[in-house]
Amino acid sequence: MIGHGFMGAAHSQGWRVAPRFFDLSAQPEMTLLVGRDAARTEAAARKWGWEQTETDWRAAVARDDIDVVDIVTPGASHAEIAVAALEAGKHVLCEKPLANTLDEAEAMAAAADGAAGKAMVGFTYRRVPAASFARDLVQSGAIGEIRQVRAVYLQDWLVDPEAPLTWRLQKDAAGSGALGDLGAHAVDLAQFITGQKITAVSGTLNTFVHERPLLGEASGLAGTGTEERGPVTVDDLALFHSRFDGGAIGSFEATRMSTGRKNALRVEVAGSLGAVSFDLEKMNSLGFYDAGAPATRLGFTDIMVTEPEHPYMSAWWPTGHMLGYEHGFTHQVRDFVEAIAEGRQPEPSFADGLQVQKVLSGVERSAANESTWTKTES
Amino acid sequence: MIGHGFMGAAHSQGWRVAPRFFDLSAQPEMTLLVGRDAARTEAAARKWGWEQTETDWRAAVARDDIDVVDIVTPGASHAEIAVAALEAGKHVLCEKPLANTLDEAEAMAAAADGAAGKAMVGFTYRRVPAASFARDLVQSGAIGEIRQVRAVYLQDWLVDPEAPLTWRLQKDAAGSGALGDLGAHAVDLAQFITGQKITAVSGTLNTFVHERPLLGEASGLAGTGTEERGPVTVDDLALFHSRFDGGAIGSFEATRMSTGRKNALRVEVAGSLGAVSFDLEKMNSLGFYDAGAPATRLGFTDIMVTEPEHPYMSAWWPTGHMLGYEHGFTHQVRDFVEAIAEGRQPEPSFADGLQVQKVLSGVERSAANESTWTKTES
Amino acid sequence: MIGHGFMGAAHSQGWRVAPRFFDLSAQPEMTLLVGRDAARTEAAARKWGWEQTETDWRAAVARDDIDVVDIVTPGASHAEIAVAALEAGKHVLCEKPLANTLDEAEAMAAAADGAAGKAMVGFTYRRVPAASFARDLVQSGAIGEIRQVRAVYLQDWLVDPEAPLTWRLQKDAAGSGALGDLGAHAVDLAQFITGQKITAVSGTLNTFVHERPLLGEASGLAGTGTEERGPVTVDDLALFHSRFDGGAIGSFEATRMSTGRKNALRVEVAGSLGAVSFDLEKMNSLGFYDAGAPATRLGFTDIMVTEPEHPYMSAWWPTGHMLGYEHGFTHQVRDFVEAIAEGRQPEPSFADGLQVQKVLSGVERSAANESTWTKTES
Amino acid sequence: MIGHGFMGAAHSQGWRVAPRFFDLSAQPEMTLLVGRDAARTEAAARKWGWEQTETDWRAAVARDDIDVVDIVTPGASHAEIAVAALEAGKHVLCEKPLANTLDEAEAMAAAADGAAGKAMVGFTYRRVPAASFARDLVQSGAIGEIRQVRAVYLQDWLVDPEAPLTWRLQKDAAGSGALGDLGAHAVDLAQFITGQKITAVSGTLNTFVHERPLLGEASGLAGTGTEERGPVTVDDLALFHSRFDGGAIGSFEATRMSTGRKNALRVEVAGSLGAVSFDLEKMNSLGFYDAGAPATRLGFTDIMVTEPEHPYMSAWWPTGHMLGYEHGFTHQVRDFVEAIAEGRQPEPSFADGLQVQKVLSGVERSAANESTWTKTES
Repeated sequence: MIGHGFMGAAHSQGWRVAPRFFDLSAQPEMTLLVGRDAARTEAAARKWGWEQTETDWRAAVARDDIDVVDIVTPGASHAEIAVAALEAGKHVLCEKPLANTLDEAEAMAAAADGAAGKAMVGFTYRRVPAASFARDLVQSGAIGEIRQVRAVYLQDWLVDPEAPLTWRLQKDAAGSGALGDLGAHAVDLAQFITGQKITAVSGTLNTFVHERPLLGEASGLAGTGTEERGPVTVDDLALFHSRFDGGAIGSFEATRMSTGRKNALRVEVAGSLGAVSFDLEKMNSLGFYDAGAPATRLGFTDIMVTEPEHPYMSAWWPTGHMLGYEHGFTHQVRDFVEAIAEGRQPEPSFADGLQVQKVLSGVERSAANESTWTKTES
Repeated sequence: MIGHGFMGAAHSQGWRVAPRFFDLSAQPEMTLLVGRDAARTEAAARKWGWEQTETDWRAAVARDDIDVVDIVTPGASHAEIAVAALEAGKHVLCEKPLANTLDEAEAMAAAADGAAGKAMVGFTYRRVPAASFARDLVQSGAIGEIRQVRAVYLQDWLVDPEAPLTWRLQKDAAGSGALGDLGAHAVDLAQFITGQKITAVSGTLNTFVHERPLLGEASGLAGTGTEERGPVTVDDLALFHSRFDGGAIGSFEATRMSTGRKNALRVEVAGSLGAVSFDLEKMNSLGFYDAGAPATRLGFTDIMVTEPEHPYMSAWWPTGHMLGYEHGFTHQVRDFVEAIAEGRQPEPSFADGLQVQKVLSGVERSAANESTWTKTES
Repeated sequence: MIGHGFMGAAHSQGWRVAPRFFDLSAQPEMTLLVGRDAARTEAAARKWGWEQTETDWRAAVARDDIDVVDIVTPGASHAEIAVAALEAGKHVLCEKPLANTLDEAEAMAAAADGAAGKAMVGFTYRRVPAASFARDLVQSGAIGEIRQVRAVYLQDWLVDPEAPLTWRLQKDAAGSGALGDLGAHAVDLAQFITGQKITAVSGTLNTFVHERPLLGEASGLAGTGTEERGPVTVDDLALFHSRFDGGAIGSFEATRMSTGRKNALRVEVAGSLGAVSFDLEKMNSLGFYDAGAPATRLGFTDIMVTEPEHPYMSAWWPTGHMLGYEHGFTHQVRDFVEAIAEGRQPEPSFADGLQVQKVLSGVERSAANESTWTKTES
Repeated sequence: MIGHGFMGAAHSQGWRVAPRFFDLSAQPEMTLLVGRDAARTEAAARKWGWEQTETDWRAAVARDDIDVVDIVTPGASHAEIAVAALEAGKHVLCEKPLANTLDEAEAMAAAADGAAGKAMVGFTYRRVPAASFARDLVQSGAIGEIRQVRAVYLQDWLVDPEAPLTWRLQKDAAGSGALGDLGAHAVDLAQFITGQKITAVSGTLNTFVHERPLLGEASGLAGTGTEERGPVTVDDLALFHSRFDGGAIGSFEATRMSTGRKNALRVEVAGSLGAVSFDLEKMNSLGFYDAGAPATRLGFTDIMVTEPEHPYMSAWWPTGHMLGYEHGFTHQVRDFVEAIAEGRQPEPSFADGLQVQKVLSGVERSAANESTWTKTES
């Protein structure tokens, strides 16, 4: 595994736990953790159970005894590592978004295409059982012809103007703000559930707080009142509409400024025969509306997605016992390992990741075009 | 009262009930009901308690013993009646939307400006206590500087392609579809709660079902399988983004195609210090988030807006006893009558109604401009 | 109508509104309002639209032009008035609980039995469409054999120890506290929905705050800090278990001390094939669970009980438009008038009211028996 | 660890994961798994990561290199194993309920008292962050003087009369039914949050389905229509009221027959200043009502218990990322290991477990006393 931030903890948990609950066709070994800082990498490896450490990712790619490379670094380094790993014949799991630029994403998809190893991008929310079951329902025809998609991903950690200027708020490192970090999940989930691709967008990006306190020694300590400030160069709100290739129309919002909303990834899909409604903050449930029910019994059914018949659930606990955030990473390992073992292309592929990048890129181009706005005073 | 459809029943209930629960400064008398069809108007008058009937609205405007004209006809006739009534010195309450065209709305606002009588447009959802209290909270500064507005009005009565082609689906009579019928409420409520006006929009209109069964003798009876069909000439989905004059950014959706959603007018406003969240389907509650609460106690409070200290509530039942849809019409009568009695301009004024029309008109112009869309395959 | 407290306002609204929304077989005339204090009665009559007033209920009973007597006085006077009215050949609608004592209730039921007039007791929550529909579902067999009932009625207006000592807290006037005021509703609704009668109970009554400030001149004004206090002589919490004659087991709670709960009358009935779940604070919805659904689609459906096919709803607004508390009183008038017009016995009858009283009386006897308790340290 | 059923999987996950997220003062080693059947024990050990296996628990107790014994067998064997382990100087973690009989529970508490090792009983729901935070709030005085407790634990896996007759439905093996399995959790959680002990109870036990299909070779295969049936000898519903030593009154329900409810452990505690409301099916949230809020802002706040300031949460994910069922077992390991390392008595102690058993025993004695019931027809 290359990288050891927040995502490193989640991926490690996935690798460690998957073989304990699922009968995997191959047993993962947590061989090598790579990070730039030797001491911190060593500490992370000890905490998360990796056997060895390195400070250069090329060491991982060069080793013959390593079959799988898991990339959890910031997006700017994804392309270089992934392409090298694929060229070295490794299987690659890469955190989302696939890359910070469309060019890089295209290079990655090209590298994956025809590579000996399998490549998958880490849109883990597909692996929440309720999201996976939403797709099953929709693809089975349970809601008929798909018409509307309403997808929002709402967080609020930037509401406070004193929240510091981390790398996530700088365009060079992060590529974009709420759009790439949160919007990417909403777009992937919407395309996953509907089975339709977005072909056109119209949107706007906004930054409410333009300067924030710098972090680190150069800027003094937080809370001293003497901090220097630096410019926020990414969006904290992205709004866009979309057209899908199957005829559906979508409304999307990704924001770090929705006061009071902590992690509300909500996707509702309405069709000619019914609707499904997913909310990550109620991740063990799925709302399902059957328009064919008798008139007196119409309503959204709050399905607790914890029956053994639901996706992934037979491996876990009895009905009614909840899963949490990191279970998606365990399911991701299961799906990735099984696809490799069976010689199948895992999903979402790098091509799927590229498609999401194209949507995000389209939103950026649309947002740069001020002529999309019409004044109410004509 | 001119007109006697669904809105006529609601307004009649408002006129009848208001003096029973509120101490009004003037006592309404339900003198005259006007409708085109004498027999049906007579039946409605008997049912709803109007003393007399007429078939020509000019009769109402001409009578000296009538002080107030309440207009509940379809939008196409609003301007002519309202302007005549105002010129005759009457006070005028006019259902929303103010008019079907911007020109008519401007004529109405001009007539109201300087008229002897008072003029009010019927955005009754302002009078839901929870919506009114949301405005109070926001205007008191409880959520700080306003940043985001998310407003949707979701219905699903057009999901069935066999739903008939009523006047509401014809542009000549209705002006627009979901946009004017539902979007107007969302826009008014958003502007009311924030105290900000929308200055620019970017949006799209969509019609999913393009032909529907004709009603009436020409088309045969419903369900015979031999119906003629006619074209739907209005939108069944309107999506738009907005900029407010105070710096807020808004996302709006109005739809008659959101399968499973019956009357979901939801407005959430997020600010630098908190947020409010209103849902008409839970109309006796308001969500309120105070970002200044201790870290361990953060969360949306589900305020039951039934305390005597809440707007309008001291007139009604003890705490915890619910109000319903038509109470808004009773509150509207209260507010209208008191404004007249005190010589104040009631709100929302015709100028407020005109402002909403300008927003809707802007959305229509924006939607007609295909260049607002960006393709994801560049 | 005899009496003009809070219930008088609700009943008046029912009488006034019912003929405006329902096609009644007979038209109610609001002829005479009776109250002890002439001035206050006159004011109430003017406000609520009663034509005449009297200070002695015997005047109402004696008049030939009065066909219906509606009793909304405190429970202590129900029996005398109702029996006299029935003996005079009137139809009688009597607020719940039927009486303060079992003897009185039995006398009333006896008087109703064989009287020329019809007699009904006012358990209006039966007339909330969702509650009425719950009964329909259960009686249709949709949940199979009934096993469990969980019914609570939670309020919190006595949490504050400075809430004053009104007549409702004095056994002489009120009969009992939470038990008779709230528990009676829970018992009636449980028996109504299940169609089963409670045959045995085991319970406890509790009073948390034993003294409260006196009201009125003798005690000084509220908030002066010098109030006299008097003893609370009724329960503020009633808990009991029940056995139903059809084999179901029930759990009941009635409380004025459930901090934060304002008017939470909740009844859940579980059967061999499904369950229904009602909550008065979400009165336009009903939860329904169909145990026969496919394993992946199991869950409570949140039915919005606003379709024209639902009880009472065709008279009101389009789908998704909410009703409130007082609509139950309008429905009560409809049902009462129609039963009279058709010569049917309206429900709930005085016999039904007596049955509820027997349950409450059983709880009081059980609660007086300390030997029902078992110590955990044996 | 002794035993390897469903609880074995959960405990194994706790032992494996705790050192990865918490900085433990001692590192657990998963040395030995004990089960009666050698092959199945070996398979479980391999799956869950235990190094060695044995078929006799005495082997574990006898080994010097084992410091901690974790008992996850059915209740009937708890006492023998735990007492032996404590006498051998081991630290003991024992699943709930402590024992099937009061005598055994008392022997275990006596053994723990004065033993060199520490002993803890596994009421893991205390370790759900929202439950733990509920206790913190209540013990901090946030809801004032505690008055009412309403605790239910609702499941529905016995609704189907064809659900088989497992050991959990046989008194010899299981001790009791819903009472001990579910009621024990409700009692422990109620006592934990309130800090009060139950001193008296009044209750009833019920069995709705008296015979069920036998499992295993003697009875033929499930679904053949020729199954033999055997008697269910435990309750499937337990209802009881309680008195707490601090003056609170409680209402409890434990059921496996609440159709549609899968794992609904709900505890609401109402006090003079506020209330807390916990629901295991919404385990990442806690409802909190502050009666001291301004009148217009009263309501339950839906606190998402995922801030780093909440119990256990700083070890996990960012705000808004959910935990699941098995996290309680990880927290349990953390608390147990830290108590051992610091030489403290962990909680809940065997004495706490014994106290819960006394409550359950009291309910059984109360339920056996038919004279607690009062007939409604006197």
